[in-house]
Amino acid sequence: MAQRINHCIGLRFLNKPDILTILNKAEQIKTDQTIVNLKNQSVVHVFFEPSTRTRLSFEMATQRCHAFPMMLDVKTSSLTKGESLVDMMRNIESLGAKALVVRHSNGGVPFFISQHVSIPVINAGDGYHEHPSQGLLDLFTLRERLGDLSGKHVLILGDIMHSRVAKSNIWGLLALGATVTVSGPPNLIPECVSDWGVNICYDLDQCLGTVDAVNVLRIQFERQHGIALPSVREYREQFGLTKQRQDLLAKHAIILHPGPINRGVELDSDVADGKNNVILDQVSNGVFVRMALLSLLMEDSE
Amino acid sequence: MAQRINHCIGLRFLNKPDILTILNKAEQIKTDQTIVNLKNQSVVHVFFEPSTRTRLSFEMATQRCHAFPMMLDVKTSSLTKGESLVDMMRNIESLGAKALVVRHSNGGVPFFISQHVSIPVINAGDGYHEHPSQGLLDLFTLRERLGDLSGKHVLILGDIMHSRVAKSNIWGLLALGATVTVSGPPNLIPECVSDWGVNICYDLDQCLGTVDAVNVLRIQFERQHGIALPSVREYREQFGLTKQRQDLLAKHAIILHPGPINRGVELDSDVADGKNNVILDQVSNGVFVRMALLSLLMEDSE
Amino acid sequence: MAQRINHCIGLRFLNKPDILTILNKAEQIKTDQTIVNLKNQSVVHVFFEPSTRTRLSFEMATQRCHAFPMMLDVKTSSLTKGESLVDMMRNIESLGAKALVVRHSNGGVPFFISQHVSIPVINAGDGYHEHPSQGLLDLFTLRERLGDLSGKHVLILGDIMHSRVAKSNIWGLLALGATVTVSGPPNLIPECVSDWGVNICYDLDQCLGTVDAVNVLRIQFERQHGIALPSVREYREQFGLTKQRQDLLAKHAIILHPGPINRGVELDSDVADGKNNVILDQVSNGVFVRMALLSLLMEDSE
Repeated sequence: MAQRINHCIGLRFLNKPDILTILNKAEQIKTDQTIVNLKNQSVVHVFFEPSTRTRLSFEMATQRCHAFPMMLDVKTSSLTKGESLVDMMRNIESLGAKALVVRHSNGGVPFFISQHVSIPVINAGDGYHEHPSQGLLDLFTLRERLGDLSGKHVLILGDIMHSRVAKSNIWGLLALGATVTVSGPPNLIPECVSDWGVNICYDLDQCLGTVDAVNVLRIQFERQHGIALPSVREYREQFGLTKQRQDLLAKHAIILHPGPINRGVELDSDVADGKNNVILDQVSNGVFVRMALLSLLMEDSE
Repeated sequence: MAQRINHCIGLRFLNKPDILTILNKAEQIKTDQTIVNLKNQSVVHVFFEPSTRTRLSFEMATQRCHAFPMMLDVKTSSLTKGESLVDMMRNIESLGAKALVVRHSNGGVPFFISQHVSIPVINAGDGYHEHPSQGLLDLFTLRERLGDLSGKHVLILGDIMHSRVAKSNIWGLLALGATVTVSGPPNLIPECVSDWGVNICYDLDQCLGTVDAVNVLRIQFERQHGIALPSVREYREQFGLTKQRQDLLAKHAIILHPGPINRGVELDSDVADGKNNVILDQVSNGVFVRMALLSLLMEDSE
Repeated sequence: MAQRINHCIGLRFLNKPDILTILNKAEQIKTDQTIVNLKNQSVVHVFFEPSTRTRLSFEMATQRCHAFPMMLDVKTSSLTKGESLVDMMRNIESLGAKALVVRHSNGGVPFFISQHVSIPVINAGDGYHEHPSQGLLDLFTLRERLGDLSGKHVLILGDIMHSRVAKSNIWGLLALGATVTVSGPPNLIPECVSDWGVNICYDLDQCLGTVDAVNVLRIQFERQHGIALPSVREYREQFGLTKQRQDLLAKHAIILHPGPINRGVELDSDVADGKNNVILDQVSNGVFVRMALLSLLMEDSE
């Protein structure tokens, strides 16, 4: 790596060579079946927010690196009973953990932890901030299908404001030289994205024909508080990726979704199961990307 | 195996050679201490219904096959939040799972899943339908004590209607040529069992003397909805395996129970701890039978 | 070991040679990096009471002994549904577990279990009774800093009555020939400790100058039922280890705390993070001590 990375907090903090190092390592593991041997070291996964698929993907990646996954589901409420977050994490480090994977409902927690321990910290999703391993697996899958991402055009569709997946995709794509457009309900698109160099497109049908890929975000009903989103039916009509809208895409354009899919809401079933979707590739690639992260962060010599 | 089995959904779908292949493999593992090396492959266990002992037995079996167990407890309610069962299972397959072990409160779910993934599916209990690994461990334990089961006579005692263990035992015993009699409260014995070739005996004391084994089912209070079962005391009087009833059995007859035991209800303590019970053998054998299943379903060459 | 120990139920039941055998083994593992190879045997951890750090420490210790940890969180309520504790444990033994680690909210449960199974049982904390692995790691950490504990003087500070950590420390320290003093609110100090040979000091500031170490107990608000403890502020004023009180200690005196810390209650932050605290050493040493226990209890030849 051009410059050794010590943690994986967000794609905003990685430059192009860093990102390419991770993607290339993942490609080695996937294609050349390079073996990663972390020699039974312990990776402790602390999930302050429930998760099934990201949790399972990290557990699988850890195990396939010949490291030992320890899975900790913590109710945030238990922290209010006395122990500070820093004390808890220093304890886990003192127990002998060699890396920490942390998910938290508040943005910034993984970064905060990384300032107080001396082992690598991987952000497995923090609030509305970032979900860097998801961003990396999206980049990996896009590159696998489209080749070098420099100059490619990617549309991110949905609730940009509350999506950490969107943020990580934006930073990663911009770092690799891609053009990024976001679309979705106006009240769910933060205006500052323009300052980041991202295009905003409120008329979805207009921009579909110009892109190489659409990353369809999950509508996270559990994070909406009743005010932000129009009705589900209205959302689908305006921003759902239906079969008709898919027909507006270029023939080579691919469709991504971080899962789990709300079929018939943000993505119609015949699109989700149709030809240019790479949704299950994303899932498979996620394990390779996370193995690459563990390998780069934990192995002594690279 | 006469015909390669791809999944283990129920004993109803296995013929005599299939079943013997599994039992013989389990015997090799137990007696010859044959090593099963599944090379660190991931087996994902998805329990939509809580379980302690079956879960632990599968986890133990997986680990002793040198595979890696991943345990997923899923509240059925979380599926209603959006993701379809098929999407969830295809995701787990895409993550790299090499086999799925599934328990669900609805009969038919493991079969349904097996139609949508390309990795082996093992049913760990589905509603009132089947619990094939339990059926196989019962067959294994019976054969270990009684020899060839062809012509042997096994009584299954209790709530036949709501017991998946009973169903799997019936299909397995019939396939191996045993005679099967069921006994229990009339409203808890489905009449169709006669059509399957099973005898029904309403007067328990009459038939005890004629059998080689009694498989005493657990009264599952948690599945009774207040109407099906007489009072616990009345149940014990009519169908509990008491010491007096044990004295009616042939001297060689053995007593099985799938556990956990309601002592003093379906089985009295002095019987549960007495001489001809094989209850803890069943528990030990369960691990060998599940190892055999994993080995036969997952190993490339047999 | 002078006399082979079969279980680890409490330090009250171990003599000086037993304790030294365990501490020396832990020292070998820590200092000489002696490898413990338990050959993938299963250690089942049954936690009837929630735990994060002790659970993680045992899981880590098991895994670093090359054994396989199985973690079972059991709600005590589920036992009332029918299965007896003995049946449950015999089942786990029959499944092939080679050791049991048990935590329970009732004192005496691990001992009771040890009477009914033939595999080693390790008490991971039982009610107000004992927490022997915590006691051993405290002894290990004290010896590491102070040398031979014979003749050393240790103060245990806090709610002695409800603390299993206090009990295990008392028995272990007395066995090794140390002087033990306890301090805390009078209604939280059982009078019987005098009969055990322990000094009671109600005026904390008086005794601080005379001790080589202070073991500050956690105030377990979750175990107080509103009547035992004065207000938090009053507690801190009388018994909290503040910076001023630390200044009363001898220069070499060290400060222990079993964690998690209630900062600003029993221990002030500048003391918890200050120079003579060994709190994170305790955490690290806990893994070595638990590895020593597993090694001594499970390895065939010693």
